[in-house]
Amino acid sequence: MSKFLLLNGPNLNLLGTREPEVYGSTTLQEIEIDLRQRALLAGHELDYYQSNAESALIDRIHQAREDKVNFIIINPAAYTHTSVAIRDALLGVDIPFIEVHLSNVHARETFRHHSYLSDVAQGVICGLGVDGYNYALSSAIKLTEIT
Amino acid sequence: MSKFLLLNGPNLNLLGTREPEVYGSTTLQEIEIDLRQRALLAGHELDYYQSNAESALIDRIHQAREDKVNFIIINPAAYTHTSVAIRDALLGVDIPFIEVHLSNVHARETFRHHSYLSDVAQGVICGLGVDGYNYALSSAIKLTEIT
Amino acid sequence: MSKFLLLNGPNLNLLGTREPEVYGSTTLQEIEIDLRQRALLAGHELDYYQSNAESALIDRIHQAREDKVNFIIINPAAYTHTSVAIRDALLGVDIPFIEVHLSNVHARETFRHHSYLSDVAQGVICGLGVDGYNYALSSAIKLTEIT
Amino acid sequence: MSKFLLLNGPNLNLLGTREPEVYGSTTLQEIEIDLRQRALLAGHELDYYQSNAESALIDRIHQAREDKVNFIIINPAAYTHTSVAIRDALLGVDIPFIEVHLSNVHARETFRHHSYLSDVAQGVICGLGVDGYNYALSSAIKLTEIT
Amino acid sequence: MSKFLLLNGPNLNLLGTREPEVYGSTTLQEIEIDLRQRALLAGHELDYYQSNAESALIDRIHQAREDKVNFIIINPAAYTHTSVAIRDALLGVDIPFIEVHLSNVHARETFRHHSYLSDVAQGVICGLGVDGYNYALSSAIKLTEIT
Amino acid sequence: MSKFLLLNGPNLNLLGTREPEVYGSTTLQEIEIDLRQRALLAGHELDYYQSNAESALIDRIHQAREDKVNFIIINPAAYTHTSVAIRDALLGVDIPFIEVHLSNVHARETFRHHSYLSDVAQGVICGLGVDGYNYALSSAIKLTEIT
Amino acid sequence: MSKFLLLNGPNLNLLGTREPEVYGSTTLQEIEIDLRQRALLAGHELDYYQSNAESALIDRIHQAREDKVNFIIINPAAYTHTSVAIRDALLGVDIPFIEVHLSNVHARETFRHHSYLSDVAQGVICGLGVDGYNYALSSAIKLTEIT
Amino acid sequence: MSKFLLLNGPNLNLLGTREPEVYGSTTLQEIEIDLRQRALLAGHELDYYQSNAESALIDRIHQAREDKVNFIIINPAAYTHTSVAIRDALLGVDIPFIEVHLSNVHARETFRHHSYLSDVAQGVICGLGVDGYNYALSSAIKLTEIT
Amino acid sequence: MSKFLLLNGPNLNLLGTREPEVYGSTTLQEIEIDLRQRALLAGHELDYYQSNAESALIDRIHQAREDKVNFIIINPAAYTHTSVAIRDALLGVDIPFIEVHLSNVHARETFRHHSYLSDVAQGVICGLGVDGYNYALSSAIKLTEIT
Amino acid sequence: MSKFLLLNGPNLNLLGTREPEVYGSTTLQEIEIDLRQRALLAGHELDYYQSNAESALIDRIHQAREDKVNFIIINPAAYTHTSVAIRDALLGVDIPFIEVHLSNVHARETFRHHSYLSDVAQGVICGLGVDGYNYALSSAIKLTEIT
Amino acid sequence: MSKFLLLNGPNLNLLGTREPEVYGSTTLQEIEIDLRQRALLAGHELDYYQSNAESALIDRIHQAREDKVNFIIINPAAYTHTSVAIRDALLGVDIPFIEVHLSNVHARETFRHHSYLSDVAQGVICGLGVDGYNYALSSAIKLTEIT
Amino acid sequence: MSKFLLLNGPNLNLLGTREPEVYGSTTLQEIEIDLRQRALLAGHELDYYQSNAESALIDRIHQAREDKVNFIIINPAAYTHTSVAIRDALLGVDIPFIEVHLSNVHARETFRHHSYLSDVAQGVICGLGVDGYNYALSSAIKLTEIT
Repeated sequence: MSKFLLLNGPNLNLLGTREPEVYGSTTLQEIEIDLRQRALLAGHELDYYQSNAESALIDRIHQAREDKVNFIIINPAAYTHTSVAIRDALLGVDIPFIEVHLSNVHARETFRHHSYLSDVAQGVICGLGVDGYNYALSSAIKLTEIT
Repeated sequence: MSKFLLLNGPNLNLLGTREPEVYGSTTLQEIEIDLRQRALLAGHELDYYQSNAESALIDRIHQAREDKVNFIIINPAAYTHTSVAIRDALLGVDIPFIEVHLSNVHARETFRHHSYLSDVAQGVICGLGVDGYNYALSSAIKLTEIT
Repeated sequence: MSKFLLLNGPNLNLLGTREPEVYGSTTLQEIEIDLRQRALLAGHELDYYQSNAESALIDRIHQAREDKVNFIIINPAAYTHTSVAIRDALLGVDIPFIEVHLSNVHARETFRHHSYLSDVAQGVICGLGVDGYNYALSSAIKLTEIT
Repeated sequence: MSKFLLLNGPNLNLLGTREPEVYGSTTLQEIEIDLRQRALLAGHELDYYQSNAESALIDRIHQAREDKVNFIIINPAAYTHTSVAIRDALLGVDIPFIEVHLSNVHARETFRHHSYLSDVAQGVICGLGVDGYNYALSSAIKLTEIT
Repeated sequence: MSKFLLLNGPNLNLLGTREPEVYGSTTLQEIEIDLRQRALLAGHELDYYQSNAESALIDRIHQAREDKVNFIIINPAAYTHTSVAIRDALLGVDIPFIEVHLSNVHARETFRHHSYLSDVAQGVICGLGVDGYNYALSSAIKLTEIT
Repeated sequence: MSKFLLLNGPNLNLLGTREPEVYGSTTLQEIEIDLRQRALLAGHELDYYQSNAESALIDRIHQAREDKVNFIIINPAAYTHTSVAIRDALLGVDIPFIEVHLSNVHARETFRHHSYLSDVAQGVICGLGVDGYNYALSSAIKLTEIT
Repeated sequence: MSKFLLLNGPNLNLLGTREPEVYGSTTLQEIEIDLRQRALLAGHELDYYQSNAESALIDRIHQAREDKVNFIIINPAAYTHTSVAIRDALLGVDIPFIEVHLSNVHARETFRHHSYLSDVAQGVICGLGVDGYNYALSSAIKLTEIT
Repeated sequence: MSKFLLLNGPNLNLLGTREPEVYGSTTLQEIEIDLRQRALLAGHELDYYQSNAESALIDRIHQAREDKVNFIIINPAAYTHTSVAIRDALLGVDIPFIEVHLSNVHARETFRHHSYLSDVAQGVICGLGVDGYNYALSSAIKLTEIT
Repeated sequence: MSKFLLLNGPNLNLLGTREPEVYGSTTLQEIEIDLRQRALLAGHELDYYQSNAESALIDRIHQAREDKVNFIIINPAAYTHTSVAIRDALLGVDIPFIEVHLSNVHARETFRHHSYLSDVAQGVICGLGVDGYNYALSSAIKLTEIT
Repeated sequence: MSKFLLLNGPNLNLLGTREPEVYGSTTLQEIEIDLRQRALLAGHELDYYQSNAESALIDRIHQAREDKVNFIIINPAAYTHTSVAIRDALLGVDIPFIEVHLSNVHARETFRHHSYLSDVAQGVICGLGVDGYNYALSSAIKLTEIT
Repeated sequence: MSKFLLLNGPNLNLLGTREPEVYGSTTLQEIEIDLRQRALLAGHELDYYQSNAESALIDRIHQAREDKVNFIIINPAAYTHTSVAIRDALLGVDIPFIEVHLSNVHARETFRHHSYLSDVAQGVICGLGVDGYNYALSSAIKLTEIT
Repeated sequence: MSKFLLLNGPNLNLLGTREPEVYGSTTLQEIEIDLRQRALLAGHELDYYQSNAESALIDRIHQAREDKVNFIIINPAAYTHTSVAIRDALLGVDIPFIEVHLSNVHARETFRHHSYLSDVAQGVICGLGVDGYNYALSSAIKLTEIT
């Protein structure tokens, strides 16, 4: 049995209400509960956390090490492009992770094309909406089972 | 009647004491109270908030939508140049805003010449000191009255 | 009593007819007369001048020194981005000035994001339409009264 | 019932033998047959094609329009970074597509960080190995069912 | 007698456990206590503070002015490369400071080569591990004694 | 019947005498008269104007709107690379135009490779000498007949 | 009598069906036959060739030398921006050529603003639709008649 | 006997009054008369002209050819950095010239480090004040005597 | 005994006829036969292949692995600067190679200064004409004998 | 017992006389003797050398290997920013070193922000004046004792 | 009476023999003797020195301070573009200097357009051949007489 | 009979001892003697010289002209990337040369990818170890025999 952590960054608490034509109408809570359900069905545990605060996300990543989390699924939202600190946190706890974006960041502003996380991630999924989380979970399960 | 929100970013709590030759000697509290007064006189409501925390500013922007704020006047200070998350928050709640800087950012370090907010703002005022807030309020009143 | 000069650059003679969705429908003449009125009411004098010629604007700036103009309000339009000569003229006569743009230049083409004047201006206002001139006048009055 | 096309670009015929630590040991044929199977089980049709030739891929994309293909899953491999012509072909036939990379391109040479396809793709998956194709198929099925 | 403040930025709470081959095995608490001891022995006072939050560090810098701190020793960690706000805080309170990095930032990723603090610091020490703090303290003592 | 305007920028009055190996030996007057002739034969009217002054060209473009000119053929010469104001004038009067260069600008100095007009032009012709004007006229006639 | 060669690059076989609002509704075959007709009427010969393959275009350029082709009209499409090999082929056979683009490449994506052919071409025409080919042919006839 | 032309660009009419610590207190008229005197003493003729208008300078350069001017001494001032048209005029009349700047442009703003004239000038003198004109005249005399 | 493969890229079939002042007058066939001869004399086998097609070169590199080729000598010509796919093919088959250019690419256009192959090659030779191939063969023989 | 070498680069012989407000008034000789004293007290040996010649510094670094120097303390001064050869010398003799700058190079001209040595140094100290040498020696002693 | 120093950098000993079409046929010795003569006639002293060694030039600049040299005329040749150390030497001795180049560096390779000395020089002369030295001496005499 | 000069730059005296995995274990002396031997066997003369000093290399290049050297083989080592002066020396004496690097500079640090010599060299060889010198000699012999 593996432990997973789903992390969502700033403004994702607005999901379902904010620019639905870009991000869909599902709320974050629905996504979180659904993903936990999927993890449970596969015999695993999944925690989730959202914060608009960079430091809260860092703290949660630190705690993940103590909780012996095996894999992190993270949608860092705007911090993708500006946070070296979250990168350092993920490197510091040494837990593998997949980076997920609901929208296709490559089709948006130029400053969204660079990520401080991608090169140290296992993989990156973008533009596939909420399914991106499910695919990340599937891969996370496989990757933790292999090890 | 419109509702306005005045947001001030990091280090602006030092106003009146910090580099007065650049920022003037009026304190932030004086500015906030004065601007509320002006709004009231014009028959409107104005809330204000200052924080050194990027996430607190984001949270306050989210709350503005629930408070049915019609217009935001924001001096993002240092976050002007580094925060994609505040940009996303402002886009997420879809409330029009004016960006204000007390000093002339174009006359300072090169990294202060780029703003993550300007291209999605209604307008930008810089270098006119405390009056910048008043001008922003005047414009905000007009713009909300038009709609 | 102060003397002000309102300068408008190339194509602004088209105001009110050109791309009204970007620049509004007020004509330049209306703006000029209105601003003079405001200056008069505040006990000051205001001259205005528009030209499509870079050199005519330079000549007018030179003359401003002889006219003992105290403050210049300038909307350099396209010359904002290409004229070192107007910058030099303003520096040469050593008269403080505020730079005004009717539209939000940061929301337009990249080449409009750089100004040859901003770093030597007192301040910059953009995106607030015709009110930008009024705010500039208010600040100019204050700044000249202080001195 | 939808029709899908799986396209693989240059050197992917080496899959299973080439740098297995980067790309895994499954052969391309195994991937192709498996993906067709998955499509069939979901009640859809899937064609596949691999070529080392840019023009052969373009021709196949053109044919896809005549075959009334609903969605393309493409791993453009090295052509990701150099082919405007494949981009034009995909835009020309106006068939939505997902871009898949087996390895995490962001963790490799700088020139692999730019893609000529990503900004016109539905989404992008990288670094998740062969599962990337499966996830792309799942999304493709959903997206074509919605329409 | 001088008052010093030792500030440590994000992820440094992991010290001693995170990438020991890069950062050594001493914990942050050990460092803090040791540095206070050294300051005391030299007849001075030293406070310390660590936070993963940019705003908490800013708040602590503001408080330093009220506490009449004479010199700050700061290891801004990841915020070195992204925080204009901490730069502004340090400039705002006008307390001299030395920037310390445990690892040699020049031997790491390119984005770690730029610091928003170095040009306004007294000096910078990197790559000398925990001793960097001691050297910074020695210099701080000297510099405050001179004044 | 359509009205056309042929505009030629700085130094083109030297045509036929200046660097004939680059620009040919036909004088500008010959070109202008010939083009008017061609327009007349096709049942249209054509005015022409050359100036070394950026502002004179702008004024002439403004006047074109009052003259109800349907299409402009412009060889902006050196102003191609430096004049935002001519771009703004053309956008301001909203008259479609074709950009013509006698020489192949791509085979000359790097600073001649960028044009402030091309992206808002109907089309661009360069390197085909005086014929470039004829082709531009042909296209202009077609395009105005369509509308 | 001269011999001409009309070359069309990748995706131009889709002409008339692909993005007609950008490229018009005439098919490539119609263009080719029409251009040959025009050449014949002027007493010349014209061959044409289209391929999606860079190498096929190169081979055809090589053959042109053996066929004693006097002038090439080429619309390199996407290869404009990526093919050094076609440039080398054209230089290798030493046959003068004009570069034609149906759409205005300067009004499209940034990567379409650079051409590997323009600086070694006689001239370039873009944005004038199918007429671009006719103008190129006219110039080609003139240029070969001169020699 | 040679004919020389001394050209001075925008704002140089302010000489002697504008930023004297940078440009000295000699007026332009004094410089012009002095230089003519020097030319006369050496048995040559010298005309002079100053304008704030780019086009007036261009016109004057064109006229120089008709006047059979042998050499031009030009201080293009701000147009140094922005005028391709003056470069083209100088190339068009094919008269050799020396570029003079009173101040040391390399010690000023970055945008003053590039000149559109220097690479086609005989030589460049900067930072030597009014003497720069004298040296330029000396060289001009020598160079025209050689030919 | 080792097996070598000599690969030549686009336009090299023109050798001996194309720009002889740059590339010499020897034909490719002569070079190929001569190099095979040299290999045979040294007791080795050498195959050769030229193609204008990127994909044909890739296919031939793939086949080299099946043919148990020990070393490749490649003159990628124009594909040097544009083909990531050939780089990937060479990395994929894991056969060491030397990159040869007949002309001195550093003395030609800027875009020829970058190679997608050099950093993964054993070595690079340019500007030494046909001898470059001979030197590459000598090195290849040595290097394969060592192993 | 360890052997240390203190190297000082160009112009440092001027120390104590040159720009004392930047570099202090201590002479280099005083620094060298003091540092040797400190090394002796700690039971180690320290040699020193200053030269204005890049090659003399390289020669001295080569000799250090023969002298079995354990650690180098180097203030490369201006060569920091321009000498690949000193970098190669240090890498060539494979002796660990610390880079010291008396002034804060980050607060000076942009070209002083890059060092050819920093990424291969153990650490870097700047802006702490003469103490920088002492701290470097302390670290050097520790680092050589560990090994 | 003033003391001047004429410094010439690398390869200038070849003067009169090297690329005479660029640098003229006068030898360096002739220039040096002539310049000393001119200085003597004006009642001043002039020393000269040429070296191919960066360090020898630095040493000579240091010595100039001890010799109480009032002004330096320097043609740094290739070191113009690469030597921070000579810049530092000139700043260190605090002797004003004029930078002279025989050829027009702006008309040569791009890397010759940047100088490490120009922004700290009194002035710069280039492209006027040997006369450049004379003009520099004239200015030096004036400038030292003023002080 | 021709005269050759083999020049080796900084740190190459360490050859055989320094980073043997990169540069091999042959000493420079062995290389020099071997190359002279090869030249002698071919009926030619070869001198050699190594220096860590840029100026010594320049002096030796100057002397080569007096020695009537026909061809230079140069491994400029670190000076490849930093010395304009050696480039100027080689151009000054007008002796053709080949640039040799033992290691593959393209596979090392980015700053090693640019050479100040390559574009004026006959050819460049890198990554082929000591054989690079032999190949350069062979080419030198051929090239001098042709002339």
